[in-house]
Amino acid sequence: MLGAALREQVCQANRELPTLGLVTLTWGNVSGFDSDQGWVAIKPSGVPYGELRPADIVLLDLEGRVLDGELRPSTDTPAHLVLYRAWGGATEKVGGICHTHSELATAFAQARMELPCFGTTHADHFDGPVPLTRQLRPEEVASGYEAATGQVLVERFAGSPAMSPRRIPAALVPGHGPFTWGADAAAALNHAVALEAVAKIAHAQLALGRAIELEEFLRAKHQQRKHGRDAYYGQIR
Amino acid sequence: MLGAALREQVCQANRELPTLGLVTLTWGNVSGFDSDQGWVAIKPSGVPYGELRPADIVLLDLEGRVLDGELRPSTDTPAHLVLYRAWGGATEKVGGICHTHSELATAFAQARMELPCFGTTHADHFDGPVPLTRQLRPEEVASGYEAATGQVLVERFAGSPAMSPRRIPAALVPGHGPFTWGADAAAALNHAVALEAVAKIAHAQLALGRAIELEEFLRAKHQQRKHGRDAYYGQIR
Amino acid sequence: MLGAALREQVCQANRELPTLGLVTLTWGNVSGFDSDQGWVAIKPSGVPYGELRPADIVLLDLEGRVLDGELRPSTDTPAHLVLYRAWGGATEKVGGICHTHSELATAFAQARMELPCFGTTHADHFDGPVPLTRQLRPEEVASGYEAATGQVLVERFAGSPAMSPRRIPAALVPGHGPFTWGADAAAALNHAVALEAVAKIAHAQLALGRAIELEEFLRAKHQQRKHGRDAYYGQIR
Amino acid sequence: MLGAALREQVCQANRELPTLGLVTLTWGNVSGFDSDQGWVAIKPSGVPYGELRPADIVLLDLEGRVLDGELRPSTDTPAHLVLYRAWGGATEKVGGICHTHSELATAFAQARMELPCFGTTHADHFDGPVPLTRQLRPEEVASGYEAATGQVLVERFAGSPAMSPRRIPAALVPGHGPFTWGADAAAALNHAVALEAVAKIAHAQLALGRAIELEEFLRAKHQQRKHGRDAYYGQIR
Repeated sequence: MLGAALREQVCQANRELPTLGLVTLTWGNVSGFDSDQGWVAIKPSGVPYGELRPADIVLLDLEGRVLDGELRPSTDTPAHLVLYRAWGGATEKVGGICHTHSELATAFAQARMELPCFGTTHADHFDGPVPLTRQLRPEEVASGYEAATGQVLVERFAGSPAMSPRRIPAALVPGHGPFTWGADAAAALNHAVALEAVAKIAHAQLALGRAIELEEFLRAKHQQRKHGRDAYYGQIR
Repeated sequence: MLGAALREQVCQANRELPTLGLVTLTWGNVSGFDSDQGWVAIKPSGVPYGELRPADIVLLDLEGRVLDGELRPSTDTPAHLVLYRAWGGATEKVGGICHTHSELATAFAQARMELPCFGTTHADHFDGPVPLTRQLRPEEVASGYEAATGQVLVERFAGSPAMSPRRIPAALVPGHGPFTWGADAAAALNHAVALEAVAKIAHAQLALGRAIELEEFLRAKHQQRKHGRDAYYGQIR
Repeated sequence: MLGAALREQVCQANRELPTLGLVTLTWGNVSGFDSDQGWVAIKPSGVPYGELRPADIVLLDLEGRVLDGELRPSTDTPAHLVLYRAWGGATEKVGGICHTHSELATAFAQARMELPCFGTTHADHFDGPVPLTRQLRPEEVASGYEAATGQVLVERFAGSPAMSPRRIPAALVPGHGPFTWGADAAAALNHAVALEAVAKIAHAQLALGRAIELEEFLRAKHQQRKHGRDAYYGQIR
Repeated sequence: MLGAALREQVCQANRELPTLGLVTLTWGNVSGFDSDQGWVAIKPSGVPYGELRPADIVLLDLEGRVLDGELRPSTDTPAHLVLYRAWGGATEKVGGICHTHSELATAFAQARMELPCFGTTHADHFDGPVPLTRQLRPEEVASGYEAATGQVLVERFAGSPAMSPRRIPAALVPGHGPFTWGADAAAALNHAVALEAVAKIAHAQLALGRAIELEEFLRAKHQQRKHGRDAYYGQIR
């Protein structure tokens, strides 16, 4: 089986989606990217998570040509490919993408709101508000809809170092839902878990009528102690 | 056992109701319809889901005469029969119905609100708002209450192709709760799962104070890519 | 073991409390009453549910004298005894009581609100709003607090047939939480499940800003078809 | 293994964090303190709960010197040490600390609100509102951030007997989340469970628009019957 290790990682991450409470029915998919080989591995469309085996994971190149696999890839595949083409290189090192319709992150996306950085829980994972992309235009939806979804994500992060996809590995597409990414499929999945959790807490906070954002110096501290040059969170690897 | 395959499907769908978080106590039922034979199979009244075996499922004809089964059918049976008589033919091809009191869909029904199409998650399953039927009249409740519940559902969809039960396989009965349907019992159950999930997301969105509906062109796109003539979601069957 | 059957029923009902999502830590208790023998069986105080065996259940008479059992009975025992003395006879036939701090029912109790009859789900179990008792007075709390809790429950239902504990087997104590009851421990537990579920739905409905109550004729119909003289819900026993 | 019994207790309490619904990913930690030996045992940083074995628990002295263990202790260790130095003695007898980012307690912390005593459920565990500490200053965050978190907790309880950490074993750090403590790791964990539960109920109550606090005489009664000199809750030990 071509790309066996990558497909096993991607299979495992997809199988965890329902266990982690992130998906209903088949509403979500995780992919992985091997930048050395130029391989993308992604969930097949419409297949229940519990039945997925590594061989069901579709292996593609960056242009979307199927290299190995019997099943049709996720309809969202063009969005994943656009993101890997933009962010899969040595600068951003994105090696995994996760797309879900998880309840609270989707509620913010449907409300067309970015997710503010309200607490240290958020700051530990996302270095600032989780941004909202612009809405897609009718002509973009009519032709190449899924690729256009990837394009508005890339566009949202372009041109501002503060908005690097490494520092804020998540965004919301209006009326649709969240995308997260990371170094590999497991990291992208972890960010989807973190995003849904901080969206829940933010929603409960907003219901209390107090939209107070975290102080800048605390946000910076939590990022730095976990992700900065002198990070001291976790074990030394 | 008469209608064994149908009763097994219906038994299985009913057994999944509590697992899927759709029912409390015995508040829900799924039925199936075999249009060739004219058979309706439905849950017996007041029996716990975990104890259900296929032989407990009651087999009836379209007029409600018991063909096989020892137990009394669900009190909601007359509503199911009205729907199969109206929608069980070649036009709508309804072969399964699910009725629950699932938490959020019931909250919208009690609030006497239709469920707007707020996002692509909703559009993937329901081609427009999930409608609310009219309220039943005292005389309808006094005599033939359950059949009248079926009648207001049929009435709500009558006369408008945009409101076809195939395009919007769900509706809310005011003060009562949701009904969903589909090609068979499993499809009806899936729509009940989808309805509760989109009702949860919509409720969370409304709490954010932003009742923004999905753009028409996006709603149409999501329906078409999943259910249209050139649908490209899922695997080729 | 004296009262073995009763203690087994009560043990089983208590063990189900956490499984059903009704209790946190040890916040809840179920008791049962055998009116022929005058026996009350109740959970011991502060013992984890998972460890309960029938012999741990304390057997008392209606005056609270321990007949059998090594452990101290629940601190709420005097409330249960007051209710059995008032409602354990041939008129109300209360043979089981359940007290929890379940999340939503407790929120209504803390908000000092009765739970209105907003839907048929509610009407299937409670024939009208679930009432709120009056607040206890400082002198009642200072001396005989738990018995006084039972007294305000009895007082709330006194003198009005529409408020019969058989027709509305639940009430809320302000600042405290819900009590439910029924023919036996299992029935009391079922009503606690139903109460928490309808409280959740009501809370979600109120968040939509639409406090619409169920029509009287629908409320009466649902009670009558399930509990009336010609009830046709469930199986013939 | 040095401090085996303490490390087993701490390991067990940490392993229960996700089971009890208190943590997402690795967002939480429990420690224990042996005042006779001066030993602190705490979770290692960033290790999944399911994989924890007693030998992974790090054993430290009160100054933070590692006595036994291969892994790096939780980044929150300095906060725990400050609390044990202040409250680990014969007056407050704090022998366990639990820190989580549990959803509702964190929402109150992010909203910069103390958690009022709204009901008897709260009063059974916390003898008054769960307080909010002051916000940390930029210079405190820049240098010795985690120890400063412990300091604002100690500061919040200093100088008022009504605010004893024994009577109110919990507090919220603004923009961050809850800390709880108790006689040992298990007690601290229990208070974290109780805090999240009463925060959920309080949040649901506030959504009903009725911020009614529990009467003083009821709050005092519930504390006294469970924790006072003549406590009669639970079994005699």
